[in-house]
Amino acid sequence: MSQFLAARKLLLDRLGERGYRERMIVTTDLKKGVLRELADRESLLSFPVPANVGGRFSVLSAVGLFPAAMVGIDIQALLRGAAHMERRCREADWRKNPGYLLGALLYLFAVKKQRKLVVVMPYASSLLETAEWFQQLWAESLGKEKDRHGRVVHAGSTPLRALGVTDQHSQLQLYGEGPEDKVVLFLHLEKFGKACPIPAAFPDQESLAYLGGHSLAELISAEALATEFALTRQGRPNLKIILPELAAEVMGQLLFMAEVATVFAGGLWQINPLDQPGVEAGKQYTYGLMGRKGFEAQAKEIKEQLQSGDRYRI
Amino acid sequence: MSQFLAARKLLLDRLGERGYRERMIVTTDLKKGVLRELADRESLLSFPVPANVGGRFSVLSAVGLFPAAMVGIDIQALLRGAAHMERRCREADWRKNPGYLLGALLYLFAVKKQRKLVVVMPYASSLLETAEWFQQLWAESLGKEKDRHGRVVHAGSTPLRALGVTDQHSQLQLYGEGPEDKVVLFLHLEKFGKACPIPAAFPDQESLAYLGGHSLAELISAEALATEFALTRQGRPNLKIILPELAAEVMGQLLFMAEVATVFAGGLWQINPLDQPGVEAGKQYTYGLMGRKGFEAQAKEIKEQLQSGDRYRI
Repeated sequence: MSQFLAARKLLLDRLGERGYRERMIVTTDLKKGVLRELADRESLLSFPVPANVGGRFSVLSAVGLFPAAMVGIDIQALLRGAAHMERRCREADWRKNPGYLLGALLYLFAVKKQRKLVVVMPYASSLLETAEWFQQLWAESLGKEKDRHGRVVHAGSTPLRALGVTDQHSQLQLYGEGPEDKVVLFLHLEKFGKACPIPAAFPDQESLAYLGGHSLAELISAEALATEFALTRQGRPNLKIILPELAAEVMGQLLFMAEVATVFAGGLWQINPLDQPGVEAGKQYTYGLMGRKGFEAQAKEIKEQLQSGDRYRI
Repeated sequence: MSQFLAARKLLLDRLGERGYRERMIVTTDLKKGVLRELADRESLLSFPVPANVGGRFSVLSAVGLFPAAMVGIDIQALLRGAAHMERRCREADWRKNPGYLLGALLYLFAVKKQRKLVVVMPYASSLLETAEWFQQLWAESLGKEKDRHGRVVHAGSTPLRALGVTDQHSQLQLYGEGPEDKVVLFLHLEKFGKACPIPAAFPDQESLAYLGGHSLAELISAEALATEFALTRQGRPNLKIILPELAAEVMGQLLFMAEVATVFAGGLWQINPLDQPGVEAGKQYTYGLMGRKGFEAQAKEIKEQLQSGDRYRI
């Protein structure tokens, strides 16, 4: 809301009332929430978020589709890919259902093999934000104190992202030799947008000559395969999702599959993957510190604790 | 080396021999390595990396200082901060030595409390890459199969980065309610470069009115404190490093402290924090796949395994 207020003022100052109303587009719930109230009151164009779709599952609603369309992504192809995956994910046999299979594998690694870390490692910087999106999806959906029966379970596993080839040089030592608590999920892109040839030079330098004639795309693919192979030899489990190319239809499949995998894993953990009860307290303390009405008790509690000095300082 | 070859060709094509030689500056070992050979052979200006300083500990050598100076960072102040911290880290009592204390705390959480995940969470996007740098430093230094006595220990803990306030909305549910396997290390910036006032508007809207008159800097600080407090109440351990401002002298202290903490933790784990024996195999398989002389056996091994089909596919 602070960012909305800042953007609103900027538009009002630069373009006046009419310019602001023409340019501010709001994506929010059809009926409730402060943004809906403002959109109605200020007659802003708005897109609806379906009432039963939470933020982290909203990428294929207007929340994701509108900005995607604005940057030139073919959202029809994106939805076509998602619909195709939706059909594949109706399969009841979990071994033949890509979403169920991914969810089950990550669940089983966490629960049966004590591998409660999921490293999502794309070998393409264009997929890094997708890994980040999955981090939220998986973390917030499955990290739950209680199961559906009210038992304290502290469910979930922790997703982290790594980027190939960069993080080979920063994280691979740990993944291969450190604690046996990880499963690595590679995202492998078969065809890059650009191949980027490596110039041939120094034919007498054995440590350089072999690179000439290859491309950076080939080098990245070779490093991905070598990393996967080296980890496997070190006894470190890993999975790979192969994307034929970075196309909207492919991405639609990937996103939908990840959402199904997450909800399915929630079922296996017997928790509710669609709520987030653990983040409310932090919001209320923020309201208290910022002086919002109705949150005086939270303000008092946090200020007293800060003054009590029962924190260790150096 | 591929990137070097690409940059070299670009400069040669655009600027010719002389322009290339004037503009290509190399930072590498004084005596060994292919880049040293090329720098000498092509008469390139070069900066030395001290022979006893590994890549992940090289930020305060020419490796980090040269690019830092190029983007306008005051490297004298950076080194002054590092030198100041170096003096503080001579203190033998680990509880009074900032580097030892940090290293000991993270080690003890990992080993005595089964908290083998270190979430580094700056509340300032300008510090995100510092968190990433620490990820490599900690992961590659401490993730070791064997200790100094040759015993298999699978030492280390896994660093991950999160960004406040963004990741409050993506990771906090997991950190507060999920598996009890984490310690959160907050990096808190006391003074932001810009305060960014939040415009006052909608005085009759209770859920917006309280924001006006505050700044985004205040809001971020309140959210940081509220998050820290909420996690503590949930029984989740956390530490905080307070940086008075984003200044070169402060960053020099922080970087040096982190390096001391890492080496000290290596001592506690009884492993060698300065080597990286686990990444060699992956490099050799890459050489094999790329057709480099002397790595034919690796190429054969990986190709045979790929054809053997003992991998599960869907």
